[in-house]
Amino acid sequence: MPSQDLAGAFRVKDGARFRLKQVDPADHTGFKSKDHATRALERGVERLAALQERLYADDHWALLVIFQAMDAAGKDSTIKHVMSGVNPQGCQVFAFKAPSAEELDHDYLWRTVKCLPERGRIGIFNRSYYEEALVVRVHPELLAKQRLPDGAKSRDVWAERFEDIKAFERHLSRNGTRILKFFLHVSPEEQRRRFLERLEDPAKSWKFSIADLGERDRWDDYMAAYEDMIRHTATEHAPWYVVPADHKWFTRLVVVEAIVEALERLDLTFPKVAPAERRALETARATLEREGKAGKP
Amino acid sequence: MPSQDLAGAFRVKDGARFRLKQVDPADHTGFKSKDHATRALERGVERLAALQERLYADDHWALLVIFQAMDAAGKDSTIKHVMSGVNPQGCQVFAFKAPSAEELDHDYLWRTVKCLPERGRIGIFNRSYYEEALVVRVHPELLAKQRLPDGAKSRDVWAERFEDIKAFERHLSRNGTRILKFFLHVSPEEQRRRFLERLEDPAKSWKFSIADLGERDRWDDYMAAYEDMIRHTATEHAPWYVVPADHKWFTRLVVVEAIVEALERLDLTFPKVAPAERRALETARATLEREGKAGKP
Repeated sequence: MPSQDLAGAFRVKDGARFRLKQVDPADHTGFKSKDHATRALERGVERLAALQERLYADDHWALLVIFQAMDAAGKDSTIKHVMSGVNPQGCQVFAFKAPSAEELDHDYLWRTVKCLPERGRIGIFNRSYYEEALVVRVHPELLAKQRLPDGAKSRDVWAERFEDIKAFERHLSRNGTRILKFFLHVSPEEQRRRFLERLEDPAKSWKFSIADLGERDRWDDYMAAYEDMIRHTATEHAPWYVVPADHKWFTRLVVVEAIVEALERLDLTFPKVAPAERRALETARATLEREGKAGKP
Repeated sequence: MPSQDLAGAFRVKDGARFRLKQVDPADHTGFKSKDHATRALERGVERLAALQERLYADDHWALLVIFQAMDAAGKDSTIKHVMSGVNPQGCQVFAFKAPSAEELDHDYLWRTVKCLPERGRIGIFNRSYYEEALVVRVHPELLAKQRLPDGAKSRDVWAERFEDIKAFERHLSRNGTRILKFFLHVSPEEQRRRFLERLEDPAKSWKFSIADLGERDRWDDYMAAYEDMIRHTATEHAPWYVVPADHKWFTRLVVVEAIVEALERLDLTFPKVAPAERRALETARATLEREGKAGKP
């Protein structure tokens, strides 16, 4: 049985005291093994599918789910396993790669704004504007490519980005978008194991790029960037979940529980039919029933 | 001769002490008549055209120019007269009308973000996201149409909108967009005169709508909303210009001077050619010259 607040244990709403070392990537508290968790995951996916239907019918809230992680931490497979029960009409996934020339001609939020979910829908960002304080921070040459004018540059571009991102998320939240952010926290040992698996399995080796090893070499820089990002952008209205990711089955369970919990809190309702409208619907039903007997309109 | 700081007299960078009554819609200080101002306007338009070319070549900054005003204050004709000398390749105008169903399914900034100018370009918003604190404030039924979920509603939606818009503009400014905002301040007497002119002239009457009279009836509510908006959103990086608008020729002059001054401050430069590249260009020139003598490549 999943604990009522499985996801809550990994939620960060106020980053001030957060340290990455507080979370063990191998953690799977409450569940002994994959088999033990399977039923809980299935039930979570079913609840999510039902809640998504209510979200769609209610048509006031949007849900934005952001995934960030090192390579091979399980972003793609988590999205696949958690969201596969959901009607694709109400759910869209966007993966953000290196920005195009047109995208670099705009501020860094621009390309993601175009992909924000509409009311009633779930939008999933597989990587996001947070890369602006992760890969761009670890590789300062990427910042130079953004052609920020000298007159606009500041001494602390990362502090400004955190401030602007927080304000952006606050604005979205005030206008009806609920935001959940997941950092899938894998250990370097488990990443090594998964990389080797990819290289050994022809069906998986397309997922490996030589560049991945270069990023792996910068592990400590990335961890420092992730920690700083979480410390500065975890808020009440847009919390981070730092999810242990050495056991994929546990990762998926935490993610589905977090999304289900957030949707349940929205108090979603199916639109009510007003008495006058109900009478009109009754008339329509009677008309259709008569037609059925006559065999034509 | 235009004063060196004609526009500066109408600039509001800090709204705390601003009151609308400080600006006389009939003001045309420094210029006796339209004839007196014509040469200054022509020169301003020429300088603007030259600066826009530098902005385009420099390719680091974008310029966003926002126009807000009551009906018949002269937004359209100001855009026409001030921007007509500018190469349309580097300038786009967007007019925001009532939001579509798709637009209402997103936060209110969404539809304007899609229209933001790229680096090197001028973007003009004929009305803008500021309508969210103007027409939506004067007509609360429009706010209801936005389907904000109860759980996201606050007690002071206008204060939140001002805060979010300020943060949005700060983010744009930090990433290379210079923002200028113009409120064309017309008097109710002059609006009446222009409305009558529209109704009497068949070439102009298409611009008149019966609904315009309804808005005119809410004059005081609109003025209160404009004043509050300027008081809360005038900043160093995105100032408001409250431009007297009873004399169109004066309005245009102030607007062109403000844009020219802002572009001059950006210190725009044509890209420099590096020595190695210059040698390659010299070789290219020599090749083309030889071809000219031979008559073929």
